Order: sequence, then structure tokens, then C-alpha cells
Amino acid sequence: MAKDSYLVGLIGSGIGPSLSPALHEREADRQGLRYLYRLIDIDDLGVAPEAVGDLVRAARDLGFDGLNITHPCKQLVIEHLDGLAPQAAALGAVNTVVFEDGRAIGHNTDVTGFAASFARGLPDAPLENVVQLGAGGAGAAVAHAMLTLGAERITVVDAMPDRATDLAAGLNRHVGAGRAVAATPDALPGLLGRADGVVHATPTGMAAHPGLPLAAELLRPELWVAEVVYRPLETELLRAARAVGCATLDGGGMAVFQAVDAFRLFTGREPDASRMLADIAELAGVSGVRS
Amino acid sequence: MAKDSYLVGLIGSGIGPSLSPALHEREADRQGLRYLYRLIDIDDLGVAPEAVGDLVRAARDLGFDGLNITHPCKQLVIEHLDGLAPQAAALGAVNTVVFEDGRAIGHNTDVTGFAASFARGLPDAPLENVVQLGAGGAGAAVAHAMLTLGAERITVVDAMPDRATDLAAGLNRHVGAGRAVAATPDALPGLLGRADGVVHATPTGMAAHPGLPLAAELLRPELWVAEVVYRPLETELLRAARAVGCATLDGGGMAVFQAVDAFRLFTGREPDASRMLADIAELAGVSGVRS
Repeated sequence: MAKDSYLVGLIGSGIGPSLSPALHEREADRQGLRYLYRLIDIDDLGVAPEAVGDLVRAARDLGFDGLNITHPCKQLVIEHLDGLAPQAAALGAVNTVVFEDGRAIGHNTDVTGFAASFARGLPDAPLENVVQLGAGGAGAAVAHAMLTLGAERITVVDAMPDRATDLAAGLNRHVGAGRAVAATPDALPGLLGRADGVVHATPTGMAAHPGLPLAAELLRPELWVAEVVYRPLETELLRAARAVGCATLDGGGMAVFQAVDAFRLFTGREPDASRMLADIAELAGVSGVRS
Repeated sequence: MAKDSYLVGLIGSGIGPSLSPALHEREADRQGLRYLYRLIDIDDLGVAPEAVGDLVRAARDLGFDGLNITHPCKQLVIEHLDGLAPQAAALGAVNTVVFEDGRAIGHNTDVTGFAASFARGLPDAPLENVVQLGAGGAGAAVAHAMLTLGAERITVVDAMPDRATDLAAGLNRHVGAGRAVAATPDALPGLLGRADGVVHATPTGMAAHPGLPLAAELLRPELWVAEVVYRPLETELLRAARAVGCATLDGGGMAVFQAVDAFRLFTGREPDASRMLADIAELAGVSGVRS
């Protein structure tokens, strides 16, 4: 008999507003699965991020099928796992844990999810010269994804120079020296003048961090612009880029495809990404997802 | 917004064949609730019964709404709870834990479940003089239930005399001296000759323990016979009692009503006991539940 009952959850800090429960449960309902997605917020529990190991073991013992993991536990969880999928090992961060026969295996569907979203939304985008803003956790995931997609050269820009340098060095260790370099924001005018496209992976543009992550006058119609922020789906950056005529990709696709890939890992079943894209457009409170 | 998502489980030993997941989930489905019932078997986990405290705390932290507790953890769990309902305190055993605002409250729906099943199935049974076979955990619960129902005198019979004496003493502490007495099986002929009815609460008659718990010739048409065993629903005892013409109550009702009461505690919603009785008849593999 095929298993048709799934218990999963999300461990992280301040995750109350997460759309993951609704994204997963809606798709599971359409597939006729009994599926429950629980939020396990370390702030509500009053425990330190290091408690993620105990929480993962407890979830395994209590019959969870898998977990999503988010800030600030994506690195901390690794030492508590029994194995890592290649993209999680390369990135050094796990956002999905699957329990299989008592073993906990770590995956990273932020990487695969961004890659899937990009391939779907900007399939013909030139990738010789990519500029990425932001070298934090999301930035690391999407930079790995861009190299997976075939980006020849990626310049990682961050206001914290060490963070950009560290990420570039880590990328080069996995894909060969010279494909990733680091830069600071003052170099953006020159960088964007010769770039094919720009990936935005800082919090700027989120409801709590309004604004533009770069000067609007640096945008030109030949640049494609890919956004990681998805609340709101239409950020100031995307609005400015569309006004100039850039091809754009909003952050909803990454949010959906990381959930698509996690759903597939948890259940072994293929989710319907189109339906989930429609869900996130509704859940994020806008009329549609451009892709 | 009313909560419509529930995560519950059962902690115990050797619980793989439990019907509780199906009983709860079928009723929840009919009510349109998202409801997942997980089995947490300490044998599979390789932990001692004393681990029940850690498991209860973990379940609370991971977002469970409640738990059922069974052998061998019904007493061990008590020291880990924040409060007890009266019937659980009187019995000294908990089969249901409800998490409310971070507090774990213990209940015993074996007691309330047997009482509800008896009141429904044998509403006019005389209760002046009741003989009960079995003074183990199930026996303690149903003896408390019989006194709650108004039994004037209950004689607890067990092949282990200390167990019968201890249970009788415990019952008398709660309801007043003299209402419960202890006896050994050799006294059964005399006891049953002047009894109104007999409650059977030993494992005899289960698939793994076939046979009759008393000599068939002690049955007479005026005796009512209430059974705790529910797999099979028609035990050898019930077959023999029906052949003689006794009014009977099978164990399916207790199994259902303990689940009915637990479901109500977990969700605050009223389950449909009739539909759940039909479920257990189907799940236990017989054509119907007599009641």
C-alpha cells in the first residue's frame, strides 16, 4: 500500500508568517494526501538555534517524514544529520531534511528551487557575466544555482567585503578558480555596465526593508533582473526594472520551487508547480506571478 | 478563525496494530478537519517506558495538540504532566494528554469510554452486585467506570490476589468502604450465582489468548455480560453468553467511546459515535457491533 500520510514541519526563528504550510498543504489536498505542515519556532520555544539537533531527533522519533530548516539553523543542523545531498554539501547549508529508515539526510532546495525558477522564467537569459547583490545565506544558495545553470562568471557584491570574498572563494572551490569574484557596492556602475543580468539577494525591498538595492539609473533594457524577495512579489527593484524594459523574474518562483522540490523529497510524488505558483500569488496578496 | 488542523499520536509498546489512527482520522475527515494521528512505539524507538516524559515534552514542542498513552506508560506519564482530570487522578492512570497553552493535562477516557459504552449498550442492567474478572490496567479503569455508573457492590476477581486486593482498596478509598471487595477465581461459582452481571477485563479471548475466562456452565440467562476485549469483537465468552440468552456488551463500544472522548478533548468538537461504531465494526473485520 502506498503511503498517503505525511507529517512535516519547519524549524527556524520568527517563522510565524511562513507561507510554507499553506503551499504544501494545498498541493497535498489536491493530490488527496493526508499532509500536515507544522511550524516549530525556536523563539516561541525559548531555545537557542543550537537546539536544532534535539528538535530534528525528536521529530524523527515522533514520526515526522521530514523538515524544512531556515534561519538561523541551516548550517547548525548539518552536524546532526546522517548524510548530505551534493548541493547541500557544496553550499554547506541545509533547508530540507528527509527521514528515511531512521536516517536524516540533508538537502538544499533553495539551490534547486532558484535554478528551476530561473530556467522556467528566464530560459533564454545570457549568462556570460552575472552580477549578484548579496552574499548572505540566500545569496550563497542562488550563486550556487547560477553556476549550476551555466553562468560563466559571477561577481558577488556585498557591503561586507569579507562575506563576498568568502562566498566567491567557496564557489571557486567547487566549480574551478576564476568563475566567481567579489566586489563592493561602489563598483556597481562599472559592473552593471558590462553585465548580462543581475540577481538580487539582499533583504532590500521586503516590507520591513523598503527601497532599491541599486541606483535606478544603472538599469538598462538589455539587463535581465532576477529577484529573491517575494513579499511583496513586486518589489521596487522589479517595478523599476520593468519600467526600463528589463526581462524580470520575481521571487515567487524560488519560493514555490523550493517548496516543489521539498514536497517531492518528502512524498516521492510530483507536485504541480503551476498550481503552486497560482497559490503563492494568492497567498502573497497580489494578482499574479510573472515568470 | 477556528483551528482546523490537528496533530495527535499514541505512545506505547507494540502499538502497530492499533485502530486509533483510523478511528480518529476517519471521523476527522467526515468533519472536514486536517488531522494526523501518529504511532510512537517505544519498542521501535528502542527506548524504555520511562522515556515517555521526554516524548511528551518533545510532542508539545513540535506542535502536537495531544497524545493518547497506552501500556506500559499510563502510570509513568503522570509525573511529567502539569495537571490531571478527576477520573485520571482517581485511577492513577492517564490514557489521554491534551496540550493547552503549553501545559500538559492528563485525562482517562478508558473510564469515561467504558461508562459511555455501558450506558448506551446495557442501559437497564441491574447493578446491585457486579463481578469483574481482571484487576490489571483495563480492569482498574472499568471498575472505576462501574462505580461511576452506580454499581452498588463490585467484586474484583484476579488470579493474582494482591492485585485484586489493591484495586478493591483503591476503589474503596474513592467511593467509600465496602463497595469493592477482592476474590480469587475459585470463588467464581458462588459469586456468579448471586450476581447481576459480569464484566470481563482480562486478555482471555483475544486472538493471542483464545479461550473462556470462566466455565461456561456458570453462565445463566439472567446475567448480563460486558466484554473489554474487542479483537475479535465476538469473543468466545460473548458467544457462550449469547447462546445461553444473556444480555451482552462487546468491547468495541469501549474502544470507540475512549476514542470519542479523546477526539472531543483534542478538538473541542463532538464526534459522531454511531459512525465511529460502524467504523470499528469494519476495521475489526466483523459484520457489525452489537450494543
